Amino acid sequence: MTARPANAHQARLLKLLRDGGPNSRAKLGDQVDLSRSKLAVEVDRLLETGLVVADGLAASRGGRRSHNIRLAPHLRFLGVDIGATSVDVAVTNAELEVLGHLNHPMDVREGPVAVFEQVLSLAAKLRDSGLADSFDGAGIGVPGPVRFPEGVPVAPPIMPGWDGFPVREALSQELGCPVMVDNDVNLMALGEQQAGVARSVGDFLCVKIGTGIGCGIVVGGTVHRGATGSAGDIGHIQVEPGGRLCACGNKGCLEAHFSGAALARDAEDAARAGRSEELAARLEASGRLTAADVAAAAAAGDAASLLLIREGGNRVGQVIAGLVSFFNPALVVIGGGVTGLGHTLLAAVRAQVYRRSLPLATGNLPIVLGELGPAAGVTGAARLISDHLFSPA
Amino acid sequence: MTARPANAHQARLLKLLRDGGPNSRAKLGDQVDLSRSKLAVEVDRLLETGLVVADGLAASRGGRRSHNIRLAPHLRFLGVDIGATSVDVAVTNAELEVLGHLNHPMDVREGPVAVFEQVLSLAAKLRDSGLADSFDGAGIGVPGPVRFPEGVPVAPPIMPGWDGFPVREALSQELGCPVMVDNDVNLMALGEQQAGVARSVGDFLCVKIGTGIGCGIVVGGTVHRGATGSAGDIGHIQVEPGGRLCACGNKGCLEAHFSGAALARDAEDAARAGRSEELAARLEASGRLTAADVAAAAAAGDAASLLLIREGGNRVGQVIAGLVSFFNPALVVIGGGVTGLGHTLLAAVRAQVYRRSLPLATGNLPIVLGELGPAAGVTGAARLISDHLFSPA
Repeated sequence: MTARPANAHQARLLKLLRDGGPNSRAKLGDQVDLSRSKLAVEVDRLLETGLVVADGLAASRGGRRSHNIRLAPHLRFLGVDIGATSVDVAVTNAELEVLGHLNHPMDVREGPVAVFEQVLSLAAKLRDSGLADSFDGAGIGVPGPVRFPEGVPVAPPIMPGWDGFPVREALSQELGCPVMVDNDVNLMALGEQQAGVARSVGDFLCVKIGTGIGCGIVVGGTVHRGATGSAGDIGHIQVEPGGRLCACGNKGCLEAHFSGAALARDAEDAARAGRSEELAARLEASGRLTAADVAAAAAAGDAASLLLIREGGNRVGQVIAGLVSFFNPALVVIGGGVTGLGHTLLAAVRAQVYRRSLPLATGNLPIVLGELGPAAGVTGAARLISDHLFSPA
Repeated sequence: MTARPANAHQARLLKLLRDGGPNSRAKLGDQVDLSRSKLAVEVDRLLETGLVVADGLAASRGGRRSHNIRLAPHLRFLGVDIGATSVDVAVTNAELEVLGHLNHPMDVREGPVAVFEQVLSLAAKLRDSGLADSFDGAGIGVPGPVRFPEGVPVAPPIMPGWDGFPVREALSQELGCPVMVDNDVNLMALGEQQAGVARSVGDFLCVKIGTGIGCGIVVGGTVHRGATGSAGDIGHIQVEPGGRLCACGNKGCLEAHFSGAALARDAEDAARAGRSEELAARLEASGRLTAADVAAAAAAGDAASLLLIREGGNRVGQVIAGLVSFFNPALVVIGGGVTGLGHTLLAAVRAQVYRRSLPLATGNLPIVLGELGPAAGVTGAARLISDHLFSPA
């Protein structure tokens, strides 16, 4: 696919077809507020590009029956979500439905060359399984800040070897299609907005708690990336003056007190100190603990694990309370690896936010878990590249 | 003035003339990207409305000389900035230049009727001094959250008697012109963007430290008001777990530890405890202390006052560091009553932000004092109503 819409009307039509599926010319005309004749011109041009195809006759609204159109069924986007410890690769159609999804463990610290080898091999596996002849575009998420226009990671703290690496250019060449790159947290927010719990919400925060902690900020329907692409970096907000030493060199950062990594450390401490038989048994079995172990132990009623989750929820809730006061969102979504901690985590976060933020900001504020799990990032990645391709060139 | 622009092109032209002053048709045509003939149509329509008038011939660019146009010189906007303890009222021309400005002490807790009497009498005084025949529109700032579309204060903590009062409707009737109402902090941000230190900056934060503390958030050139109009309410972000009791009922809020009111209380404590002769002398002279006394004492070298300012700057800097990590602005402006604390305050804020936020977010981040002082709010108020009137009806 090299065609791009020629003007804002065509771009609007493509996005309506992406988000709403096949539709009749008549109904699309109502939504874009174009006259019948102008709409016909724009639709004909889209049909010529091959991005849109005819899809039979629409149900009658009286008078002459309108023709249905839809996005070309052979269009394929690749969504890639590179995490700290694993990578997700998925293929979607033009309506951003996930047709196939692979996950593979890897270490982002191995550097871009090794990671891209993995990504390309997973993409080839999806292609060879018959899900795609080729890719029309790819969206890539990385676990660090990105200079968005160029698609280049900038000073990513947990990604040695990636600083300044031309991810967009390199992958575009390898994949032979247009590529856009963004921070993984922004893509989770886009994914939940596209197909998850934030569907149709224009102003929301999406807090991702995985190995680290970040926040996607959506304002007026679009991601706010900030002046240098680092917006949403909330992991180093101070929650405890003089608190734990953080990897960044400061003390008392949120990430040092609660994140997937901090929770695993705290759980191992609890196991070794004899505060939890459940955790001790798990530690003995596998030699290490993860957030998933704490979730499982808590589900089995382990008091020490429940306490760790509640304390962590209080910490992150304290930060979210400040963000809610500052930003006054319509929705807060919590996602990432720790969503397995479930209701106990949410309850602690909610208690902090509803207690600490102004009633005016919390009176109508849902705080919910993300809905898409690991599909959020790859769906957001496909959304990112489709937003780019469905905009005027 | 009842005329409004009929379309987006006319609105764009009006704002260009407002922000750039008189201009030639030829140069305006370049800026709005309209053909000569289409531009002529739109300008002629604006001339018919009376919003725009001819202004002689432009300098030659070769060929036929272009005609200058400008906003009608008789247009007048009223800018009103209601604070906790005083009110500012100013009259501007359509280019938002302040032609006259009055300030009067009053207590917002007296309620809307008493306060409006003051506002109307100050407006009448400005009108009678010959600065305006009548007002074409008025912008009103109030020290609390506002349901923006209706122009109604909502649950304003320091404004008893104002909750749900139809400020927009009531003042529109009294003044006989269109009125828009917003939070005072948002108007300070708009004012600094229009004519002050944030001129031409699209993404910035404006922290107002007066009796309380609030933050104006500008994203992509427009004010972010949040889902319920309470965005920027940072005064109750926790800075000290288990800290001082705040008027809101929580402990350790920023406002409880640093604001104009907290600073005055701390200064009186220092004076009574014998920690500052300078403050003690001022307290004896006037029976109470204000932030201005602390500023004056600090300027005279008083160590206790310098310490109070530094400690306060650390507190507010701690919160701003979190906001910078979260929002990644291109500029932070500090304004409000405490700007008299000057460099000492700024130095403490900067130290916290540059120490605590990611280098990527602070590498190119000016933190500066507001430039307009008390004119920021009234200029922002005039900008607010002109944005409304210079938009398609």
